[in-house]
Amino acid sequence: MPSWLRELLLLTLLAAAPAAYAEDGYQLWLRYPPVPAPWLESYHRAVAEVVSGTRSPTLEIAQTELARGLAGMLGAAPPSAPAPSRDGSVILGTPRSLPLLAQLPLELDRLDSEGYVIRTLILEHRHSIVIAAREDVGVLYGTFHFLRLLQTRQPLDRLDIVSAPHLRHRILDHWDNLDRTVERGYAGESIWDWHKLPDYLDRRYTDYARACASLGINGTVPNNVNASAISLTPRYLRKLAALAALLRPYGLRVYLSARFSAPIEIGGIKTADPLEPAVRTWWRGKVGEIYALIPDFGGFLVKADSEGQPGPQSYSRTHADGANMLAEALAPHGGIVMWRAFVYSNHPQEDRARQAFEEFVPLDGKFRDNVLLQVKNGPLDFQPREPFHPLFGAMPHTATMLEVQLTKEYLGFATHLVYLAPLFEEVLRSDTYVRGQGSTVAKVVDGSLFGHSQTGIAGVANIGSDRNWTGSHFDQANWYAFGRLAFDPALSSREIAEEWVRMTFSNDPGFVESVVAMMLQSREAAVDYMTPLGLAHQMARDTHYGPAHWTSVYYNRADARGIGFDRTATGSNAVAQYAPPVAAQFADLASLPERFLLWFHHLPWDYRVASGRTLWEELVLHYTRGAEAVRAMRRTWSALAGKVDPERHREVSEFLAIQDQEATWWRDASIAYFQSLSRRPLPSASPPPEHSLQYYESLCFPYVPGSVPRTAACAGRDLW
Amino acid sequence: MPSWLRELLLLTLLAAAPAAYAEDGYQLWLRYPPVPAPWLESYHRAVAEVVSGTRSPTLEIAQTELARGLAGMLGAAPPSAPAPSRDGSVILGTPRSLPLLAQLPLELDRLDSEGYVIRTLILEHRHSIVIAAREDVGVLYGTFHFLRLLQTRQPLDRLDIVSAPHLRHRILDHWDNLDRTVERGYAGESIWDWHKLPDYLDRRYTDYARACASLGINGTVPNNVNASAISLTPRYLRKLAALAALLRPYGLRVYLSARFSAPIEIGGIKTADPLEPAVRTWWRGKVGEIYALIPDFGGFLVKADSEGQPGPQSYSRTHADGANMLAEALAPHGGIVMWRAFVYSNHPQEDRARQAFEEFVPLDGKFRDNVLLQVKNGPLDFQPREPFHPLFGAMPHTATMLEVQLTKEYLGFATHLVYLAPLFEEVLRSDTYVRGQGSTVAKVVDGSLFGHSQTGIAGVANIGSDRNWTGSHFDQANWYAFGRLAFDPALSSREIAEEWVRMTFSNDPGFVESVVAMMLQSREAAVDYMTPLGLAHQMARDTHYGPAHWTSVYYNRADARGIGFDRTATGSNAVAQYAPPVAAQFADLASLPERFLLWFHHLPWDYRVASGRTLWEELVLHYTRGAEAVRAMRRTWSALAGKVDPERHREVSEFLAIQDQEATWWRDASIAYFQSLSRRPLPSASPPPEHSLQYYESLCFPYVPGSVPRTAACAGRDLW
Repeated sequence: MPSWLRELLLLTLLAAAPAAYAEDGYQLWLRYPPVPAPWLESYHRAVAEVVSGTRSPTLEIAQTELARGLAGMLGAAPPSAPAPSRDGSVILGTPRSLPLLAQLPLELDRLDSEGYVIRTLILEHRHSIVIAAREDVGVLYGTFHFLRLLQTRQPLDRLDIVSAPHLRHRILDHWDNLDRTVERGYAGESIWDWHKLPDYLDRRYTDYARACASLGINGTVPNNVNASAISLTPRYLRKLAALAALLRPYGLRVYLSARFSAPIEIGGIKTADPLEPAVRTWWRGKVGEIYALIPDFGGFLVKADSEGQPGPQSYSRTHADGANMLAEALAPHGGIVMWRAFVYSNHPQEDRARQAFEEFVPLDGKFRDNVLLQVKNGPLDFQPREPFHPLFGAMPHTATMLEVQLTKEYLGFATHLVYLAPLFEEVLRSDTYVRGQGSTVAKVVDGSLFGHSQTGIAGVANIGSDRNWTGSHFDQANWYAFGRLAFDPALSSREIAEEWVRMTFSNDPGFVESVVAMMLQSREAAVDYMTPLGLAHQMARDTHYGPAHWTSVYYNRADARGIGFDRTATGSNAVAQYAPPVAAQFADLASLPERFLLWFHHLPWDYRVASGRTLWEELVLHYTRGAEAVRAMRRTWSALAGKVDPERHREVSEFLAIQDQEATWWRDASIAYFQSLSRRPLPSASPPPEHSLQYYESLCFPYVPGSVPRTAACAGRDLW
Repeated sequence: MPSWLRELLLLTLLAAAPAAYAEDGYQLWLRYPPVPAPWLESYHRAVAEVVSGTRSPTLEIAQTELARGLAGMLGAAPPSAPAPSRDGSVILGTPRSLPLLAQLPLELDRLDSEGYVIRTLILEHRHSIVIAAREDVGVLYGTFHFLRLLQTRQPLDRLDIVSAPHLRHRILDHWDNLDRTVERGYAGESIWDWHKLPDYLDRRYTDYARACASLGINGTVPNNVNASAISLTPRYLRKLAALAALLRPYGLRVYLSARFSAPIEIGGIKTADPLEPAVRTWWRGKVGEIYALIPDFGGFLVKADSEGQPGPQSYSRTHADGANMLAEALAPHGGIVMWRAFVYSNHPQEDRARQAFEEFVPLDGKFRDNVLLQVKNGPLDFQPREPFHPLFGAMPHTATMLEVQLTKEYLGFATHLVYLAPLFEEVLRSDTYVRGQGSTVAKVVDGSLFGHSQTGIAGVANIGSDRNWTGSHFDQANWYAFGRLAFDPALSSREIAEEWVRMTFSNDPGFVESVVAMMLQSREAAVDYMTPLGLAHQMARDTHYGPAHWTSVYYNRADARGIGFDRTATGSNAVAQYAPPVAAQFADLASLPERFLLWFHHLPWDYRVASGRTLWEELVLHYTRGAEAVRAMRRTWSALAGKVDPERHREVSEFLAIQDQEATWWRDASIAYFQSLSRRPLPSASPPPEHSLQYYESLCFPYVPGSVPRTAACAGRDLW
């Protein structure tokens, strides 16, 4: 085919496709639009044929994805060849699938089972690119990496990539109920259609698996941590097995949230006491039943003795007793227990942020090897900003995994553009000092600080049945960033954003620069308009939608004299849960980063912050700055019209308009409330709130997404 | 462009598109794939340019759709021209938008405001096609009709079409709650995202409007008949207004389900008594508030005094009192009240099927002109088969509209392939005999029998957020069939099926023939495996999922002696609610169609039916035949692989496999239950049920879609 014709065909494709298929975001970052010149020529040279060997299901997936990606980007999939026959061979496989690879100096032995190499080699005078791994799944990961190079316009001529995941368990936790409601879900119904399983396998399952595999996510917990024992009944296990079989070749294992009281609810036993032999026998039997159906079942995720969930404490047993019972049942099969450290008793405490540390630190060393303690990034609950959780580093004898939240329960749901990688990065890079400087949370989590081999990270999924998967186009970036950081916690949020923007929207340099900049400042904007200066949990009760300082006095401790939660020695002394250098830094106003000011200290309204302004003035300025940042984001995005398809441009614009309204609402309601206490004037140039405090307090939202049940009582209040 | 190149480009499009965009059903019947030879040449000749005049929003939509359709089918949209300039002009508009049309002999005055003509004309020696109407919406309808001609491969050379809807109000009723759950919804969450309205307008709203306009559906009730008063609050009305503005240019009006007790719940009044002046004033004010926001608001749909809903009877007032109060408030604005005749008291009656007739017939003549009584097709509740509702024809002084159900609450949910047009056709063609032979339900509904100008039909929507809209590809046909029959109740289910198959899947003659035949027999199959010979309501309580004869004894009246509901003079005498010729036919076993046998008669197991078999044997044979018909459908579909895209082929195959399982379950459970009473052997060649009756009775399904709340109690039962 002459090249002019090829280009004409490409242009036709570009022009015609949108007419029939309006852009809806379903393809996530796995889009392979035609590559323009001059890249096209160089990629054509580098990729002229594909050499692969025998096909396992996983290798089949890798080869199909490679063909799909190359067909889209280069106009046609290059031909297959049994052995390199020209310049531009792409050779992929394992030494088992393609014996040729065993003869190359790739040092695959030095990889772990999920690692891979991508290398440019001269083979018999021909330029080749090798994508190789010890195991099939590494080839799959390498294939997605290779495609990403083209998607983001990287040169292919001197590739020398060796990559392997830094964490062993990289897991999405779906807080999805079996009836397809999703707790804190803002992207439609659950993607898991239990009613139709095992007979109907929704195509989404496959595309979910592709997306996860493209990032190296290797586990999924499809049911809510607030679990139903029904997930463990024989019929539901058969449903799960069908899912597991579909996900397996993508390198994804299934896990289950296990309800601790299941032996009572479906086992016919009168107790769930973890030291009771009948209970232990029941769990051993149940685990055996699961593995008979799902030989690579991952294990259990457990929320116990928290927010009303059953747990070992009902029987005067410890978390370790509970976790070890399950771990013992799972160990012969290679399964793990992820035991959540998020424990909230229903009895109010002086400082909820202290509870997990108090309950778990005494148990250090008491957990079995296949138990991982799953700790949220901060001690409270997925706030826009928290200091790192004091449990990180405090339990050297316990494998500790990180739990972050992708679904933006406290960060504006799906309508607010908030890129979360800076939040994840902030916690991973936080220094616990437990083994001296450089004892970062990342080193706790990747096992290197204490020498743990069981390592992991969990992301509370933001995925639902909405066509764009995550409820908004930009929330796809949070799924993406989670997966990338899970694979390599050292990646920067900027690198990840740039990759994602290029793959998802456009490689136009001006577009990439503007959008990455907008994403990188978006989380700080949300902190500013919601909870600046270390404030936390000012959201409405239950729904967590919008500001409700008036019901969050427990957290803000604001009164006529000042504001902030005293967690120093004069207060709850939660600061003492950190290693001494950190505790000292946080306790001392001179060294404490101002972003945590009101997290640790109760201060008078006229306290002078670093800027020289009073705390009151600074607070108002932060709120105002946050709302203004959203307006700036709107301007940025508006100027990018024409650089991205009109469908996604319009949707993002409408969401930014909502975010603008809501950021203003947050700012105004916050100022109105705190001014009612501070009784101080607004700084000049700060406009007064649009409405009265009474107005903001009166608002009620009867149908807020993500809440279960979905209907809030609003009797006598102004309905939204 | 040379023609070989054009064809090559088309082939490229065809080949490349599926790689990037797997077929997911989102496009419904509005797909415009390239037309092959020889049709392509003749269509190119007939459509060489488009002539249109000034553009209103509605005409803009028509022209855009025409361009989109022609671009897809012919390879490129033909050029626009200000006036006919060559052979093959397509001229569309109204006399206002294109004065040229006023000079043509089109007799547009004889059309109603929604009618249109499509006509081949010679204008100044040139072949032209005119799509013209009095009003813009007629042009839109005509445009979709014209595109349908190409989609279904009709010749364009001698068009002479005059078309206008036979019914005035053609409405979809969404039983969608404001929290996006859908009562009896099997296609995911509600498409209406109230939380994000009015700021975010989901692209689905536009595609919903396109699909409705393509059929001539002209109204939508977006909220559940089990209504919340919150829909009538100012904020929710502003949300509705945003929706109304989007839907308006597609010819779609919005209506609301109104909660009768809203004056109490949101009006601050102590009563909802329709004769209380304060209540009447409140509704007048509320209606005025609505019309200020939505000048073409359609009116209210009301479910009152039924299944626990509030209504006028609480105040000892009649349905007419209640309906007229609302109608009086709406009349100055041109709005209507659709008052549902589906009334079920919570006090069990001897025969529930009698209640609506008894309550409403005495009120004939008492309703205001702008009230339509909305009557379900049968007297019970959307069963696989019912005789027509005796209210049809029984209230000559009352405008009576038909309500049918598209969502298959009692017909296998979204997984069963059941084409409902034969059911709709059966009721429309039923003869009430109230004005002698030929007094069909269709003539009652289209107003011709009694001279009503307020006419209408409502379909309980089967639409949700699932990518394919209706939960299954074949359920799209039920939306389609409803819309087409609403426009023209005289269409046959075969014509409609053929159109739909051609537009949705393929024009391949063998494919069309097989699939149409499968669709046409699918409803009888469901009747056979669920409720043959006039049985009804044998589904599980509340969820309506699967067989539960043991809790449906009220309806089957089966015992050791026989089976069936005696509705003759020796029983409930519901048969007397029909006009005398019909009553006589139904009461007499010699003249009663066997399909209604057990609806009207209780008969001994050994009663001899027309075939000479006993009733028991005949019943077993019907169940068996139904299950076998599903297996035949599987075989038919399986043989069509390759004639349709693999994605939809696979999904339909998996659903048919589920239907096969469930049809067998229905058959086996039904036979097991009735055999436990009849104590008779199975006919030879009828295999025994796979499981014991005890097994079928033990099954419990904790998470059945479409049920609100979504969780059923299953304590101590076998979980599915």
